[in-house]
Amino acid sequence: MVEVPIQPRMGAVLILLDERGKKYAVSNDALMSRISKLGTVEQAKLQSNVGRKVSVGGRHFLVLSASSRDLRDTMARGPQILTPKDLGAILYEADIVPGARVVEAGTGSGALTVAIARAVGPSGRVFSLDVNADALAIARGNVAHAGLLDRVQFLQADVRKGIETKEVDSVILDLVDPWAGVESAWEALRSCGHLATFSPNMEQVKETAAAIRHRPFVEMRTIELIEREMEVRDAGVRPSFAALGHTGYLTFARKVLDTF
Amino acid sequence: MVEVPIQPRMGAVLILLDERGKKYAVSNDALMSRISKLGTVEQAKLQSNVGRKVSVGGRHFLVLSASSRDLRDTMARGPQILTPKDLGAILYEADIVPGARVVEAGTGSGALTVAIARAVGPSGRVFSLDVNADALAIARGNVAHAGLLDRVQFLQADVRKGIETKEVDSVILDLVDPWAGVESAWEALRSCGHLATFSPNMEQVKETAAAIRHRPFVEMRTIELIEREMEVRDAGVRPSFAALGHTGYLTFARKVLDTF
Amino acid sequence: MVEVPIQPRMGAVLILLDERGKKYAVSNDALMSRISKLGTVEQAKLQSNVGRKVSVGGRHFLVLSASSRDLRDTMARGPQILTPKDLGAILYEADIVPGARVVEAGTGSGALTVAIARAVGPSGRVFSLDVNADALAIARGNVAHAGLLDRVQFLQADVRKGIETKEVDSVILDLVDPWAGVESAWEALRSCGHLATFSPNMEQVKETAAAIRHRPFVEMRTIELIEREMEVRDAGVRPSFAALGHTGYLTFARKVLDTF
Amino acid sequence: MVEVPIQPRMGAVLILLDERGKKYAVSNDALMSRISKLGTVEQAKLQSNVGRKVSVGGRHFLVLSASSRDLRDTMARGPQILTPKDLGAILYEADIVPGARVVEAGTGSGALTVAIARAVGPSGRVFSLDVNADALAIARGNVAHAGLLDRVQFLQADVRKGIETKEVDSVILDLVDPWAGVESAWEALRSCGHLATFSPNMEQVKETAAAIRHRPFVEMRTIELIEREMEVRDAGVRPSFAALGHTGYLTFARKVLDTF
Repeated sequence: MVEVPIQPRMGAVLILLDERGKKYAVSNDALMSRISKLGTVEQAKLQSNVGRKVSVGGRHFLVLSASSRDLRDTMARGPQILTPKDLGAILYEADIVPGARVVEAGTGSGALTVAIARAVGPSGRVFSLDVNADALAIARGNVAHAGLLDRVQFLQADVRKGIETKEVDSVILDLVDPWAGVESAWEALRSCGHLATFSPNMEQVKETAAAIRHRPFVEMRTIELIEREMEVRDAGVRPSFAALGHTGYLTFARKVLDTF
Repeated sequence: MVEVPIQPRMGAVLILLDERGKKYAVSNDALMSRISKLGTVEQAKLQSNVGRKVSVGGRHFLVLSASSRDLRDTMARGPQILTPKDLGAILYEADIVPGARVVEAGTGSGALTVAIARAVGPSGRVFSLDVNADALAIARGNVAHAGLLDRVQFLQADVRKGIETKEVDSVILDLVDPWAGVESAWEALRSCGHLATFSPNMEQVKETAAAIRHRPFVEMRTIELIEREMEVRDAGVRPSFAALGHTGYLTFARKVLDTF
Repeated sequence: MVEVPIQPRMGAVLILLDERGKKYAVSNDALMSRISKLGTVEQAKLQSNVGRKVSVGGRHFLVLSASSRDLRDTMARGPQILTPKDLGAILYEADIVPGARVVEAGTGSGALTVAIARAVGPSGRVFSLDVNADALAIARGNVAHAGLLDRVQFLQADVRKGIETKEVDSVILDLVDPWAGVESAWEALRSCGHLATFSPNMEQVKETAAAIRHRPFVEMRTIELIEREMEVRDAGVRPSFAALGHTGYLTFARKVLDTF
Repeated sequence: MVEVPIQPRMGAVLILLDERGKKYAVSNDALMSRISKLGTVEQAKLQSNVGRKVSVGGRHFLVLSASSRDLRDTMARGPQILTPKDLGAILYEADIVPGARVVEAGTGSGALTVAIARAVGPSGRVFSLDVNADALAIARGNVAHAGLLDRVQFLQADVRKGIETKEVDSVILDLVDPWAGVESAWEALRSCGHLATFSPNMEQVKETAAAIRHRPFVEMRTIELIEREMEVRDAGVRPSFAALGHTGYLTFARKVLDTF
């Protein structure tokens, strides 16, 4: 292993965490940051206090450097946003690693875009397609806030009609009708590239699986992840009485050029 | 977004997939690759047939470029290996991104090592600690096979007695007694760095949570992920009659320097 | 099979169901029934309209004859009440059948008492123990409302100090410290009688299992039931986005007189 | 509560339990019982040793009086049999109590028949319909073994074409096409009677729900129960690494005469 110097994390995106666990995103596009509902604060003061307690608007906060999850949790959003459990599974199963070139459609509010953009790193590329200009604008704002615009290209386009970019490593479909994007995905993927789709309903899964089976894909599988939060206290350990319900089914497959 | 040329994937680690879904790892350290139970095959022939069907030892296989999951699935292993669902959650929740410097202990058979090493990319670093020299040797073999030795340092060391490397972004503890490594983890982490632990039993979770609470950590939570595979057929869609049972609980927390 | 005449269901306990699914219990101890928040209504009118729509206080309701579940759902209650999934499992696994003699402790708000009392029928007996006189009073009210007092005996007693009744078919412990009642349960049970305990926390389960192992019991097992409600619509079938979280662990065992 | 004498359990169906937890049914139709693979043993000897250890064919067994679950576990069976978790839920949610008159279709191997027959007691009645004479014969054998023939009537009939018996309290459909029996069920049920159906696939659930919605039923809901067995040991408490997968969806509804 070659020794590398520790890189100072200049200009990290910051989060304020209050005592009850609520997080506030800090915009970092100016010397003075405006924090929703809290007022303004000097960037430099926060940047030099990562991990420490600061006072903003008369209240105490811990300053955090933003993780992928923080960015997701504080994101300006529409009605629907992928959960951490599903994001983690998509990144791992679709093999989204540094340098990868990834297509996602639709863009939605950009939660998946940000997660992918961080995972592919500065040498990777994300092509984010949506037919809805408003969604693209919201997502672009979220990606800009996360400081990841250098690697993300937003495209107002209908994935059902094809994907211009080719030889991509992964295609992620988060659409009402993912089956309609399967042909485009196969055309855009490199050989052995990964397809992932997310759908709440079983009928969507069924139709998507049928579309995948009609093309040279292997290792198709559909899973659901159920997350149980545990209450861990001296008084007793048990799963939470409140539960995260269903979010959606994840279907994965890999493009090949031949079939058996 | 800046345009980047598509990088040719030279020397990718390869996998042979048979018709029933079984995968065989292809060693890539010589012109002729020896494949366990199948015989030998010319590397160049496989490299030029990614995604295509080849014949080895009289049987047909599809040639796949190895994903993180393929590397895990074909790994020489001991009795215990983290599952994809838990690997995905650890990578996401512990914010393991390109360039990150990550400590893991214990090394085990190296499944997590490989997953982390791929996620941090060539600019990241993995420090993998284990007291067991045999485990380290197996893991080193697995990491070498995956072509990731440039970014992984193996250390025969007891994490309970401290971690020499400091200012790391994440520490992952996959030990029988993760609580005994919490102090070392706090010392080694940068401010806002992430701790993740994996434990099958609730007693381990409880003791680990107590150790975390005694130090400046925030956002501690413990979850369990349950994976349900779905059978998606024209004849009917339903969860699988066979199920993946419990694997373990995941506990996450973040180091801070102040408390409320 | 011998032919039996269909028994007219005179004096059934009745429920009013509104359009949104909310249920109201109808007290049946007088000619005029007072319904909480709705006003009064003539018993005879309701009894002759089971399954039909009636108007009460200017609103429309369907009149239902009360099931075990209706009685549970409309019960005057304290903070905690067993769920249908757990009630069903206890009745089946503890083999609570017509004619059975069953001890339960503690009484709580009487939801389990009512479920058992219905399952054992008029030839069975339920002995319900609680140290708390207030709980016993509430439960007695709920059992009286359900018309089941003929088969239930309430006892202000501490199950930890013994159970006076002997040769019972089943003992159900719904206590904070079920382990403290295991000795009493063994003494009270007939040979091959069933023990069931309910506990939210893993520590309670562990201590209870240890207490059971120290005595001649067989077939001890602990389960958790997770209920997922399904949304079944023309637009799509999926598990509910809202989920029922953890309720508790159920431990079952059977008394024997010898050990292997 | 009226005092009742404890009824001696004469002629109980018996089970032999070996040291590893395997159960053997004891036929009780003769003085000498033949036990599959074990040889013969004197009934009287077993009846006087309930809960005690006996020696049969040179091996040791504990003698158990058979519970509903024992009868199910030792049943001569076809490929498919309802699980305890689903049996418990059906009995509770369909309100199958002493004295109830219940129709089930199809009969299958009789596991549900036995569970219902025990729950309704000697004053209840079970009408079990199947088109398959072989299934009826197997089920009749299982019900006879359980000593429950006095309350069960087997009918070779197609539930899709109607149910002759009327004013029944509950109808349980365990068919490939439960939707085809919904009309018959509505006609056979008394007002406020309960319908329950069991189906592995979501398509079956969807079609059944549609059939139910087209008729005057209320409180329709579909659930799935997931059972997790817990490993409770001094060394640690955790859910089992092996899991019970999907069995089926349960749909419940109640017949009414009016609609809102």
